[in-house]
Amino acid sequence: MKSEKGTVSAYTIDFEPVGRRGKCHKSESLLACAHYVGIGINSICGGTGVCHSCKVQVLRGNVSRPTSKELEAFTPEELAQGWRLACQTYPLTDCKLSVPPESMTTLQRIQVEGKELRVEPELPVRAYQSAFTMPSLSNPKADTDRLIEELNHKYHIHCNTIEINVLRSLSLQLRSWDWRCQVIVRDDQVIGLNPWQTPLLGLAVDLGTTKVAAYLIDMNNGRTLAAKGIMNPQISLGEDIISRITHIIKSPDKSLKIRKLIVEGINDLINSLCIEVGANPEQIFDAVVVGNTAMHHLFVGLPVRQLALSPFVPAVSRALDVKAKDLGLCIASGSYVHLLPNVAGFVGSDHVAMLLATGVWQAKGPIVAIDIGTNTEVSLIRNGKITAVSCASGPAFEGGHIKDGMRAATGAIERLRIADNKIQYQTIDKAPPIGICGSGILDTLCQLFLSGVIDAGGRIREDCSRVRNYKRQREFVLVGEEDHKKQSDITITQRDVRELQLAKAAIRTGIQVLLEANNCTENQIREVIIAGAFGTYIDVASALIIGMLPSLPLDRFRQVGNAAGMGAKLALVSSTKRAEAQSLAARIKYIELGTAPNFNQTFIQTSYLGRYRIREGKREGVD
Amino acid sequence: MKSEKGTVSAYTIDFEPVGRRGKCHKSESLLACAHYVGIGINSICGGTGVCHSCKVQVLRGNVSRPTSKELEAFTPEELAQGWRLACQTYPLTDCKLSVPPESMTTLQRIQVEGKELRVEPELPVRAYQSAFTMPSLSNPKADTDRLIEELNHKYHIHCNTIEINVLRSLSLQLRSWDWRCQVIVRDDQVIGLNPWQTPLLGLAVDLGTTKVAAYLIDMNNGRTLAAKGIMNPQISLGEDIISRITHIIKSPDKSLKIRKLIVEGINDLINSLCIEVGANPEQIFDAVVVGNTAMHHLFVGLPVRQLALSPFVPAVSRALDVKAKDLGLCIASGSYVHLLPNVAGFVGSDHVAMLLATGVWQAKGPIVAIDIGTNTEVSLIRNGKITAVSCASGPAFEGGHIKDGMRAATGAIERLRIADNKIQYQTIDKAPPIGICGSGILDTLCQLFLSGVIDAGGRIREDCSRVRNYKRQREFVLVGEEDHKKQSDITITQRDVRELQLAKAAIRTGIQVLLEANNCTENQIREVIIAGAFGTYIDVASALIIGMLPSLPLDRFRQVGNAAGMGAKLALVSSTKRAEAQSLAARIKYIELGTAPNFNQTFIQTSYLGRYRIREGKREGVD
Repeated sequence: MKSEKGTVSAYTIDFEPVGRRGKCHKSESLLACAHYVGIGINSICGGTGVCHSCKVQVLRGNVSRPTSKELEAFTPEELAQGWRLACQTYPLTDCKLSVPPESMTTLQRIQVEGKELRVEPELPVRAYQSAFTMPSLSNPKADTDRLIEELNHKYHIHCNTIEINVLRSLSLQLRSWDWRCQVIVRDDQVIGLNPWQTPLLGLAVDLGTTKVAAYLIDMNNGRTLAAKGIMNPQISLGEDIISRITHIIKSPDKSLKIRKLIVEGINDLINSLCIEVGANPEQIFDAVVVGNTAMHHLFVGLPVRQLALSPFVPAVSRALDVKAKDLGLCIASGSYVHLLPNVAGFVGSDHVAMLLATGVWQAKGPIVAIDIGTNTEVSLIRNGKITAVSCASGPAFEGGHIKDGMRAATGAIERLRIADNKIQYQTIDKAPPIGICGSGILDTLCQLFLSGVIDAGGRIREDCSRVRNYKRQREFVLVGEEDHKKQSDITITQRDVRELQLAKAAIRTGIQVLLEANNCTENQIREVIIAGAFGTYIDVASALIIGMLPSLPLDRFRQVGNAAGMGAKLALVSSTKRAEAQSLAARIKYIELGTAPNFNQTFIQTSYLGRYRIREGKREGVD
Repeated sequence: MKSEKGTVSAYTIDFEPVGRRGKCHKSESLLACAHYVGIGINSICGGTGVCHSCKVQVLRGNVSRPTSKELEAFTPEELAQGWRLACQTYPLTDCKLSVPPESMTTLQRIQVEGKELRVEPELPVRAYQSAFTMPSLSNPKADTDRLIEELNHKYHIHCNTIEINVLRSLSLQLRSWDWRCQVIVRDDQVIGLNPWQTPLLGLAVDLGTTKVAAYLIDMNNGRTLAAKGIMNPQISLGEDIISRITHIIKSPDKSLKIRKLIVEGINDLINSLCIEVGANPEQIFDAVVVGNTAMHHLFVGLPVRQLALSPFVPAVSRALDVKAKDLGLCIASGSYVHLLPNVAGFVGSDHVAMLLATGVWQAKGPIVAIDIGTNTEVSLIRNGKITAVSCASGPAFEGGHIKDGMRAATGAIERLRIADNKIQYQTIDKAPPIGICGSGILDTLCQLFLSGVIDAGGRIREDCSRVRNYKRQREFVLVGEEDHKKQSDITITQRDVRELQLAKAAIRTGIQVLLEANNCTENQIREVIIAGAFGTYIDVASALIIGMLPSLPLDRFRQVGNAAGMGAKLALVSSTKRAEAQSLAARIKYIELGTAPNFNQTFIQTSYLGRYRIREGKREGVD
């Protein structure tokens, strides 16, 4: 960023995977900037470059040259990969950093975004550099035969079919490229041509009900070249999946329109990603898409009506390979889109991708893996057996149906503590508070419970300070009184608390049903994986105190960020990972929550706040 | 046909494969009608029903009940198939008859059209009757998994992929069809769904430069349900292939338009065929298309520029399987179109289909197989080795570039004899003469040569009757003088004769080059196969007398009609035939005529009229 006089005053620093951004003056270290924007990076030695606990990786942008301390701390390879000590490094331009979990002071997170893949690329689509002899009267072989025979002769590849657009363009392109090019092959099919020595790109997409994330990958080394997210444009036709399905059932002629919305959204993402790295969408020859079952169906153009009606049957569960052009995606016209398998009507391929990325599906367990969202999917893995449920947790944790709820955007209260009867909060981008997002809502519920404003049953007590009656219901004022008018105060109402109780009871009940179906107790759970955007930012301790999650030691919880996107990236570059996804999905036993024994009883009990265990539908206190 | 008073006076009778049509009064037998319209059907016993030499098959329409003679002549199965004695049968409605070669008095023809296939259907696409259990809460399996597992369980079919349109329609169709349907499978792919017990249809297309023929086939028994031909709509953009290619080179933006013309033409044919048998184009799940290389390329949308430039390289030789929707064909959306392989820039898949249909490619030989057209392809088969050339014979034999030439349509002179200095001719549909078509042109050249009006060098003599000078050139008057004004006379001009000499020399040279390349003499040729519409109707004797064909006994010639269409039909119903076509095409060695030794010398010598042999570029008289 340049000041008015043209001299550089401060740079913008992106911290991944937390997705926080802050301004950093050129005289400030990256560590100082992190602390300023509220990101907890270790600094055991106090920023003297001795403890090496503040390692970060510079993903983009220029920074100061390595100091002697850093030359000690890293190998030349690590320095080449951008690894630095945050306390020793000063920005020279805007930067993007990846903060690895071991450098964070907060609860351990697996960094899924921004971190390069660890899987060995094993590409379903490959590029073969090929040079051809020109035809002559004595060798008037057809252009395609020339191509097929070169692949066979030089690479021992036997291709049977050639994509129609390659057939149509081959003769002209070979002649204009001087009889050399890259031949792009998938299975036994020639799907495209690329100019000599152009990078082969791939696309991974995580299709959420609310957000869509896309990653542009260099297929030859598996590196993420660019990543970008947008709000799902279908939100205009309904915030949650059920309302979108209802919309389609009511006006079936709209189904094409609703599909077009998401396809155009992804195409916009593709264009932005390509512009960012100076590539052409025609260089993208493979794609993997994950999403919940309904988003999967809406994207592919499958019917969704039966998803909303018992027995909630998907049109398609198995993994699909669909031509990009049949889906309307503007990437290389011969390319395919691989869609990871779904499990059930409300357990989709994003959950499968999460299990794939975290690797927990192969663990001995018992491990509980949770994707928290409007719909929350939970799997329990035990001795290679996977059982899954889907819980209708509702939009409360995304700020929906909450009076002053909002999405995680600038000005949202994302952390909240009540100490000495005083409210301390932190907002996104340190902006003046305008509402409260999921993690803040969770903190608030926890703090109000701990401070006795709300009882275990969820009732707001009348006789507390900051509690008032307004518009016929009781509410607790988080921000207001002094500096705001009543109607723009930020409050938590009795109705909000009830909404949150239902949401957290749904999740806890799902976990409980899985434990009972597997004859497990809570204490046997070795690890709880929490995935998804909301899951990344919550304070797990708050979730434990309100009884949303089983009462276990904090170190058994792992927040893994957008593991679904990570799973999509893994599947993009590895055929083995695609096969693993299919096999793990086939192994999942789905339980319809409503049909589980003790379901109603458990649901009622888990709506109570506090730490407790559930046994046979009864609550037992802990601590 | 009804007279003005509403009583039936005469019916229209179509005779196949000659494609002639005539009126038949209800009191006339089919034999009488045939003789009346000039079709030579045997009648050794004089029409008394004793000799059984006038067998015909009624393909469509109603006729009188079988007489006792016919009950003697045929088995009940044969009668059920429509077999009758022409002398014993009277029409009750308009009819379509197939006249088998053994019933014809003219030179033996293999009837390709109208005759049912002899190959055992061995379908690349199959329909599986399937019934499914309905989903329930205890069995909420995805609809596609249900489908795939039923195929696997009941038929031991392992399908990996499902066509996108099937995926999109499956859930609704299964529910509306009460959980039973036919699943249409191709290789390991589900390509469509058909209602329970609907016939599976196929389409065979012969794509000629001038004519397009299409056949609708019942895939389960290989029977032709309907056949129809149209003029190629691309004629509007150029009568011959080179002018169409030139058109595209000059305005590349027109290539889509020229492709659209042929695709729309075929779609019209598909609709007509389906209407004729009361079927739906969506029931057509497989198609085979053959044509010359340029038509193949224009249809598929391949570039043609390089076809017109030395070394005349096709974009594609090998057999192709292209999705019907990628070509724009309006048949079942998941279906594929199989295109038989091409051989070279000017030897296309129609020639391959002809070799396939006649079976000569497997013969010991030597056999010469000729497709006569604007471009004439000739193959010589000897001990399993096939050598082919392409001859630019030009449009003369289709009536092009000939002053009074016309296509084989009503009023065209199709036969001509000169006896006692008098001209006898026969026109199509016995209409007043308006021009002269290919077979008539050939006869005329022969008769003028025999009667001495034209000398062996092709010069029209000045001193003969009916020879005159008109508009600065010499011409022979075929029709005129008495009954017409000069400008509407039908004549053969000196320029016409030169055009015909070039055409027939091209063909004869092609044969000669093949013989020399194989160290064969003309006399060793065991059989000459003549295919194509023009080849079906020519008088082979005339062709011998003008030296267009080698001077061999008449019984070594076989006219096989539209063998390319027959080959397409065979490939449609038989995977083995498709494989045979690929293997025979790969076996053909193509010789570029211009590069052959003695080419120029041979071409000059073969432009002479008369019976002769060629040895080392020299002409030797025979007879």
